[in-house]
Formats: sequence, C-alpha cells, structure tokens
Amino acid sequence: MIVVIGGGPAGRLGAIHLAQAGKDVRLVEQRSIGGQCLHERCMTICALNDVARLIECARTQKDLGILDSVPTVSYPAIRKQLSEVQNKLSSVLDAETRRAGVEIVYGAEGRLEGNRVFIGDEEVRADAVLAATGSRPAIPDIPGTDLSGVHTYRTLPTMADLPRRMAVIGGGVVAAEFAHIFHAFGVEVDIIARHGLLRDLDEKMRSAALRDLAGVGIREGTPVTSIEGGGRVRSVILAGGEEIEADAVLLATGLVPNSEMLQGPAKRPDGAVIVDRRMRTSVPGVYAAGDVIGPPFLTPAARREGVVAAENILGRETVMDYEGIPQGMSLRYDYAFAATAGGDGGITLSAPAPAGPGSFWDVAGGWAGLAQIRVDPGSGRLLGAAAAVPGASLLLSYIGYLMKQGITVDDFDEIVEVHPSTDGVYGLARYAAGLLKKKNE
Amino acid sequence: MIVVIGGGPAGRLGAIHLAQAGKDVRLVEQRSIGGQCLHERCMTICALNDVARLIECARTQKDLGILDSVPTVSYPAIRKQLSEVQNKLSSVLDAETRRAGVEIVYGAEGRLEGNRVFIGDEEVRADAVLAATGSRPAIPDIPGTDLSGVHTYRTLPTMADLPRRMAVIGGGVVAAEFAHIFHAFGVEVDIIARHGLLRDLDEKMRSAALRDLAGVGIREGTPVTSIEGGGRVRSVILAGGEEIEADAVLLATGLVPNSEMLQGPAKRPDGAVIVDRRMRTSVPGVYAAGDVIGPPFLTPAARREGVVAAENILGRETVMDYEGIPQGMSLRYDYAFAATAGGDGGITLSAPAPAGPGSFWDVAGGWAGLAQIRVDPGSGRLLGAAAAVPGASLLLSYIGYLMKQGITVDDFDEIVEVHPSTDGVYGLARYAAGLLKKKNE
Repeated sequence: MIVVIGGGPAGRLGAIHLAQAGKDVRLVEQRSIGGQCLHERCMTICALNDVARLIECARTQKDLGILDSVPTVSYPAIRKQLSEVQNKLSSVLDAETRRAGVEIVYGAEGRLEGNRVFIGDEEVRADAVLAATGSRPAIPDIPGTDLSGVHTYRTLPTMADLPRRMAVIGGGVVAAEFAHIFHAFGVEVDIIARHGLLRDLDEKMRSAALRDLAGVGIREGTPVTSIEGGGRVRSVILAGGEEIEADAVLLATGLVPNSEMLQGPAKRPDGAVIVDRRMRTSVPGVYAAGDVIGPPFLTPAARREGVVAAENILGRETVMDYEGIPQGMSLRYDYAFAATAGGDGGITLSAPAPAGPGSFWDVAGGWAGLAQIRVDPGSGRLLGAAAAVPGASLLLSYIGYLMKQGITVDDFDEIVEVHPSTDGVYGLARYAAGLLKKKNE
Repeated sequence: MIVVIGGGPAGRLGAIHLAQAGKDVRLVEQRSIGGQCLHERCMTICALNDVARLIECARTQKDLGILDSVPTVSYPAIRKQLSEVQNKLSSVLDAETRRAGVEIVYGAEGRLEGNRVFIGDEEVRADAVLAATGSRPAIPDIPGTDLSGVHTYRTLPTMADLPRRMAVIGGGVVAAEFAHIFHAFGVEVDIIARHGLLRDLDEKMRSAALRDLAGVGIREGTPVTSIEGGGRVRSVILAGGEEIEADAVLLATGLVPNSEMLQGPAKRPDGAVIVDRRMRTSVPGVYAAGDVIGPPFLTPAARREGVVAAENILGRETVMDYEGIPQGMSLRYDYAFAATAGGDGGITLSAPAPAGPGSFWDVAGGWAGLAQIRVDPGSGRLLGAAAAVPGASLLLSYIGYLMKQGITVDDFDEIVEVHPSTDGVYGLARYAAGLLKKKNE
C-alpha cells in the first residue's frame, strides 16, 4: 500500500496517478479534499474577484452613463455562497479521486516518525509515502496578532461583515489581490509593505498593477511594529511611529510549510521538507510534494510535483522541471508572466494591449492593459512574455509552453486570432518580427 | 503607386505591408478607417456584450444574495459612448497606418473600370490595385423591410432607445449574438430562423449556446413572409400565418459583397469577386481581399488575405491558407472552435469546463461551460477543439496554431496552466492521453 498524506493538489494528483497505475493507495485528509487551493486561496480569490471586477466594471459603465447604478455587495452572503460552492467542488474532486481507485480516509492525521507511518493513532505498513501536507499563513512576530479582527486568508471568511477600514500587511501578490478586492467592495484599504509593493515585478507591469490599486493607500518600506486594540483591533503602528486606524487587519506575510507531523525527513530552517528533483526526501521510500517543500507555492507546480513523486514511486525515473511555469495575479485585469530558463538577455518591448472582451469600455478612460515580450534579437526566439489584460492567464499558459518549444517571433505569423482579442503579446511578437526583418535586410 | 480601395482589416493591413516594403501606397476610404469590424460588427458586438455580460453576471450574483441589485442599461448612453470609443480607436488606426507610410484619401470612392482606376472622378495611374471594399448586410426579399424600426447591424446604433419587443430574423452567429445582448438588456426577443438556429454547431456546443439564450423565443424552420406596420413596424408574419408582435426587427440574414464599384474583375452570382489563392482577380494587376471575395467574413482572415495580396503585389509568391482559422461567437460565454484541415475522423470527447475567473458563481447553478476535443486515436493528434467558457477565444487561437503544428494529447503534459483556469480543453487532452495510454498498454 502507498500512503498519501494530504488531499490538496499535490497529494490528490499523486494519489490518482498511482491508483491509475494499479497501486493500492490510501489518501489521508484531515478536512475536505482540494487543499488550500480550493478552500482558502486560488478559488477564494477567484470567487471574491469575480464580484470585485463586476463592481468595478459597473462603476466604469455607470460613470459613462451606460448603467444607472453600481450594485452593493453583501459579505455575509458571499461567505455563505462561497462555502457552498467550495463544498460542491470538493465533492466533485472527492468523486473523481475515488473513481480513480483511491481510498480516502477523512478526519485523521497522517504522520511520519522516521520511516514509521501513522494514520491517527494506528501505525500502518506502507511501501511508500507521499507527504503533501501543504502550508499555512505565516504570522509575523509582532504584538497584537491575536486580537479579534486580525485575519489571515484562512480566517477572512469568518468575518461577520465588511470592515470600514482594513490594513493589509504584506507586499506580495496575495496582499495586492485582497487589497484590490476589498477596495472594490467599498472598504478603505491600506497596504503596508515592509519592503516594496510587488517589487519583483517589471516596472511597467508594476505600474499597471498600481493603476488597478488606485484608491488603496500604499505604504512601502515601513515595517509594522504592533497591532493595537483592546480585545478588538483598532490600529496598526508603523516603525516610524505613524498609527493607521483599522477595524480589520489582513496578514499577507507569506507561507509556512506544514511539516511538524513529518518527523524524519531532513528540513530547511523554515520547516520545508528537502527533496531532490525526483521528490525524494532524506528517508528512503518517503516522497514530498507541494507547499510542504517550499516555494513556488503554486497549484500547477504542486500538481506536477505530485505526479513526479508518483512516477518515481512507480519506479519510473522522472525529474521535476520548473522551467516555463507561468505565474499569475488577479486584480482588475489578469496579470500573467512566463519566461524561459536562464533567459535574462534579449530586448524588451512593451505596448498598450488592444481593447477586447472585458476591456472595451476602459478605452474611454485611455487604458486597456499592457503586453510585454522579451526577444533574442539574433534568433528571434521569445524569451519572456507578460500581459495585464482580461484573460492574460489563459494566454500565458500556452505562450509559456510555446516558449519552451523555442517559438520565434516569426512563428506568430502562423497564429490566427479569434477577433476581437485582448492578446497584446501576439501583436507585439508580430511587430518584433517586422523590426528584426528590417534590421537583417 | 499602388491604390488600395477600402480601409477595413484587409485593405489597411495590405496597405501597411506594402508601405513598409517601401511602396508608394494610396488608401481610399469613403468613411473612417477600421471598416465594419471596428464600426459596425466585431467591436460593436464586443461593446454591447461587455454590458450584457455584466448585467447577466449581476443577475446571477443578485439571485445568490451577493449583490443587492442589477443595474439597468441606458441605450442612448451606449450609442453615444460607443461612437466616441470607436472614433478614438479609429484615430489610433489612422495614425498607425500613416506612420507606416500609407497616404490615406478620405471621403472619395475608389472605383475600377476594367483596368482603369478612379479615385472619385479622377483617373489615376496605378501599378497595382488592392480592392478591399468589404460587404454590407443582406436584405431579405420580403415586404416591409423599409418600415421604420426595421434594422440591420448597421442601423442598430440609430435606435433612439431599447424597443419593448424585438424580432431577430436569421439563424446564424450574428442573430444569436444580438438576441443574447438585447435579451440581457431587458428586451423581449424572438429569433426567427428559416432553417435551424446555429445549425452548423456541434450538438453539445449548440446546447450550451441555447442555455445562454434561455428566455429568448426561438422559432426554427419558419420563414418570415412579411413585416407589417403602418410606417413603423408592428409585427412579423411567419410562413404558417403566425403573427409575432415586435416594435423592432433586426435583419441578421447574411452579408453581400460590395463590388458594384469594381467593374472588370470576374464575380460570382452573389457579387463576390473571384480570386485565386494569391488573391489575384481576373484582371492582371488587380487583387482583392476581405469580405468582397465572400466568406468566411472574418477579420483575421481578411487581414491575412490583405497581407497575402500585398506579398504577391511585391512579387513574392504567397498563397492564402485557410487551415486552422479559429472561429468565435460571443454569448454569455465565449464560444470558440478550431479544426485541422480535413480532420473529419477521430474520437470526440466533451466535458464540463472547470470553474474559473468569470464563471465561479455559475457553479451554484451547476454550469460553468463546456470543452470538447477531437483526437486521432492512433497518433494521439488533436484534430479539433472547441470551448464555451469565459476566455475561450484566447484559448482557441493558440490551440488552433498548436493543432496545425501537429500537437498530440501527450504533449499537453508539458503545458502548465496559470491556476485557476477555465481551460477545459487542457484537462480533456490530458484525460484523452491517459485513455490512449491505457488502450495501448
């Protein structure tokens, strides 16, 4: 028997892969299947953002006189409907997983002690173990994080109603995504970033993101020293002494691998289980995948790591390839990025994206998004691409793949769009092909 | 000098291509640049549909209690803002075209008499001509089409306000798109199709489209014998004698090539100019491209035809390739389709699409769209794909290209999505890869 600990993207996909290969697989899941991706992160942000975008687009169309009003959101209703949809999706995943032949054990904790495996209190014999125990939000070491009204993405759905003013502590994608959502819902939002906000982004893409965050208070390079309040949060104190009023605080300060129950495999200081590219831990027969092994903390990466672990458990030597994994961020538009491995050079070109489905009326305000490419001028190979437009995520998934295949800007000549399209990468690639052709003539 | 007649997608792209190659190009455009695509068809539907989708999504979220209200649309405001945005986009195209070196002559008609070329009343000497005079809506030969309140897509923006009840005559994509839009705006809509509605669609995709048209009255196999009214339209009479009340009628009964001003080149009985695959007409030195040469009446095809004509004018033998041109339709979701040439065989698989951006809350109603693929079971090659999800158009542009490149379902293993995603084609392809693997084991 093979024991899989954790029913998130890594564990579930690994378990299915093993069961489909004829193995006897037991998947141990403490709560319900789907992991944080379904219950707390990707899908929650998707759900809230679908509402936020609607409200923002309604505001644009109202300002143009096209619509008579902008709807108001009920947070209690979102909370209730969100968990209903998540349960529905979870039961679909449960059925799919069982249909593949996986036995699911709910409500018990899977544990490792060296090479001994426990499900709850019972020790079980396993031929191999796939540990996919995920992660949880990091809590910064400052006073006041235990006050009522201080949340992580995990506890947000327990908020009784929208706060009046929310402080988001953090400077990454998750901080930006939630700040955008609650601002659209009518909450006064401040982002407080220890370093820069979205500082890993290219400058032009970052400017685009800041447009989407217009109206959000942004403080950068300002650590928070404490969260104040009597029982309930009242304000946040910054390093310089400034006090920011807030009746809710969201801690978006990163993730911590859940590895306390995994005693035996070697770990990094942050608790991440150390694996090789075949997902093997330091304990023979024990594999790990997903958030528990540390960044990039992405569902598609976790899924693939689960499958790579499964392949190696099946005796098929397979290595994990992190090249070309596109990343995304959801604000008013989708932001998506992909790059080839080690492709640092090249010429970068940017241009406003064409208006299309989802962005037509934004043209009235002079902005329909951005596209960017990085091209090797010698070979014409596409080394990187990014877009901030409705649908950018769908786009970059395929462009990421094509880059891995070595697509050149000339090859875009053979791509035919469905018109109208928000795809600015396409136009830029064709423009770049023309430039290179002229240069070589 | 080369004369290009018509500043729509075919003429404009052809003119730019020629100017960039160093040619002296004069583009003659009677109205403003961008053609029907910008001023009357693609972009108008995109604009109206962005409002329609917002209203429908607001209704879904209102029904779930998430939003407190559904905004109401002002048609006069849409009309006004639409033309402002279109003019803005048109001036962008004008600038881009001039920057490429094209001279634009506005307000004059370009004409051909044999191999003589006229711009207005002036005969000009041209080394070559690219005729891209486009098309116009067909008017069916029934009494009453001249009544006030009877429209084509061309005159829709002149409607003073929304009608109470609209009859859409036609059974194609355009009929479905406008019916969907006006229904969302609160108009009572009836589609009256001579044959079947969307009868060229695969049965499952058609069912998906009919879901998006729920609430629209649909009559199939019923020709209209007359449109009745005294000055203003009052009703539509069907072949069986049934009378359908309507204070507006939309004729969506196809397109007619604009070729009256092109005397000389051989034409088909419907007026379409006959060209070979190099876009050459029967008159030496005269090329034609875009809607004036007949179907498929698609912007991306027209653009490419314009470029193919330009290449041949430049003496570079290039042929037009219609393989893998994806097609789209915009209802509540995007519908998009692509297929390889002659790929009739294979196994067809369909599945509900995953919920993602734009469709999350639809899960509550049990429907987040559809994906479909057609696979050659021997080689695993993807022969066709279709999707009805938010963003399907972006998806199918790239999948269409990959199919032309011979992608197999196994290759999808290398594609990494940005999560969450509405891309059901990806999931289906991976599922098919598993099935074929099992079969071959």
